[in-house]
Amino acid sequence: MIARQQQVLALCGGVGGAKLALGLARCLAPQQLTVVANTADDFEHLGLSISPDLDTVMYTLAGLNDSRKGWGLAQETWQVLAALERLQGDTWFQLGDRDLATHLLRSQLLARGESLSAVTAQLCRRLAVDTRLLPMSDDPVRTVVETDSGDLAFQHYFVRERCAPAVRGFRFEGIEAARPQAQFLQLLRDDSLAAVVICPSNPFVSVQPILSLPGVGDALRQCRAPLLAVSPIVGGEAIKGPAAKMMRELSMPSTALAVAEYYGDLLDGFVIDRSDAAQAQAIEALGIEVLPAATIMNSLQDRIDLAQRVVAFSQSPL
Amino acid sequence: MIARQQQVLALCGGVGGAKLALGLARCLAPQQLTVVANTADDFEHLGLSISPDLDTVMYTLAGLNDSRKGWGLAQETWQVLAALERLQGDTWFQLGDRDLATHLLRSQLLARGESLSAVTAQLCRRLAVDTRLLPMSDDPVRTVVETDSGDLAFQHYFVRERCAPAVRGFRFEGIEAARPQAQFLQLLRDDSLAAVVICPSNPFVSVQPILSLPGVGDALRQCRAPLLAVSPIVGGEAIKGPAAKMMRELSMPSTALAVAEYYGDLLDGFVIDRSDAAQAQAIEALGIEVLPAATIMNSLQDRIDLAQRVVAFSQSPL
Repeated sequence: MIARQQQVLALCGGVGGAKLALGLARCLAPQQLTVVANTADDFEHLGLSISPDLDTVMYTLAGLNDSRKGWGLAQETWQVLAALERLQGDTWFQLGDRDLATHLLRSQLLARGESLSAVTAQLCRRLAVDTRLLPMSDDPVRTVVETDSGDLAFQHYFVRERCAPAVRGFRFEGIEAARPQAQFLQLLRDDSLAAVVICPSNPFVSVQPILSLPGVGDALRQCRAPLLAVSPIVGGEAIKGPAAKMMRELSMPSTALAVAEYYGDLLDGFVIDRSDAAQAQAIEALGIEVLPAATIMNSLQDRIDLAQRVVAFSQSPL
Repeated sequence: MIARQQQVLALCGGVGGAKLALGLARCLAPQQLTVVANTADDFEHLGLSISPDLDTVMYTLAGLNDSRKGWGLAQETWQVLAALERLQGDTWFQLGDRDLATHLLRSQLLARGESLSAVTAQLCRRLAVDTRLLPMSDDPVRTVVETDSGDLAFQHYFVRERCAPAVRGFRFEGIEAARPQAQFLQLLRDDSLAAVVICPSNPFVSVQPILSLPGVGDALRQCRAPLLAVSPIVGGEAIKGPAAKMMRELSMPSTALAVAEYYGDLLDGFVIDRSDAAQAQAIEALGIEVLPAATIMNSLQDRIDLAQRVVAFSQSPL
């Protein structure tokens, strides 16, 4: 385990990342863990400011997520959406009633001039989440998915088009002007940082926006703490979401090895699923330590076990 | 009855006015009726643009109102408000889930640059309301209630403080710069206008904002159609809302007569409840024709009957 005063930084997107973040939250003290979530899939819809990845992590850490459905809140209801449908409003984005309350409150606080960081901290406090959860930036960054049907705003690609169009590339609008969240950048330079963990999130649209923020790549390379990733690809497929489909469309093999190659020299270590252990040697040939582990997190104990393995791996002699 | 090409204009606020508006809608052809609703109790809440009087009239004309509760939508649910309460958000304004869909859609359309008139027309069309419903103005007017506890925005007075503070006066912020809705003003100058009906709404906060719009008082005085009001005060009390309480706090008798005096020389005719027939002579002494009628509208038939009496009264020789 890591010392009491040491810290772990987790970078993550939505559902898969949130699972590991929860595991980390359960095996570290609150002051030891900082989770930075992607905000490049944030969007404005019906006048509301929606931050899907922040909310997924927040709901998961609060124990309010719908683990059966895999997204959104447990015991969610859909009265507003049904009424909106009767009014012939936009209903392509599934907005639950309980979730909507979060968006209303966030939008209200943002409109008052508060930063997304401050609003996120407030929401977390109100939901009794004691892990420090930070947006990757308080400045707007918006992923555009370049597809064979043209450019699509991320949620249009992801939700409205159900990831059907073939992907050709991505761009992150606003990224050049976006400043990494201040505490995030500070932590990267902090001597107490013991490990940076890239959670098993989509490398292209969940993790890459965080890595692409000005200064973050350099700070990660300069930081003394080891940087580890957990592969989101197991047996050639993503546990959830379009990562494997995207890799194929981008003419990459949909393998853990290809993910390791994608992160490249940023990585000190890579956690792959046991079932992919045959790829370990090729990944190690890239100069990356490999830990095969049980990476499919069905139960809470799976999340905790994997988090413990990841933390222990980060502290092993590399 | 009035001729096919003639038109009736109803001026109204919320619940009481909406009842008569529904009666009028049921005894006139769609093209014969225009309802102008007060927008001075509109407000912005949780980032949403809320128009309580427009919505009350719209829901009532659509047959979607909760007639038992007296406000809001039938079969309403409260999931968002409950979630907002868990998040320690603002919950003093009762926002139902179905109602919220209306506010989301309105706010979205307004944010796109559409006028409140255009948005109202769209919402009405989507709810199959064929009566022409107009906001009194597309420009913002906001009632401030001057009370012995200080100035209060209307909804703060009405909903949050439950009309408890004693009223000293009212002002309508923005009224000097607000233009009456164009079709409203046009209709006042139209030869086809057969009657203007002030519905039994609160004279101070529902009707007065409409009358105070620049040009409306003059247009009403110049218009050839008779102007009638239906008393919102019956037996010294308002059927609903704080009108009688306000009158007492303003040192006015809470009587139909005092309402007639308040509207003064605008009125050609005044419909009072049968139970107030003793006041007829004093009202007629003001130069106003009086029709005692059954003005308490419990059933749909009551609404239609009263509407028919009002229309017939407007066409009787004054």
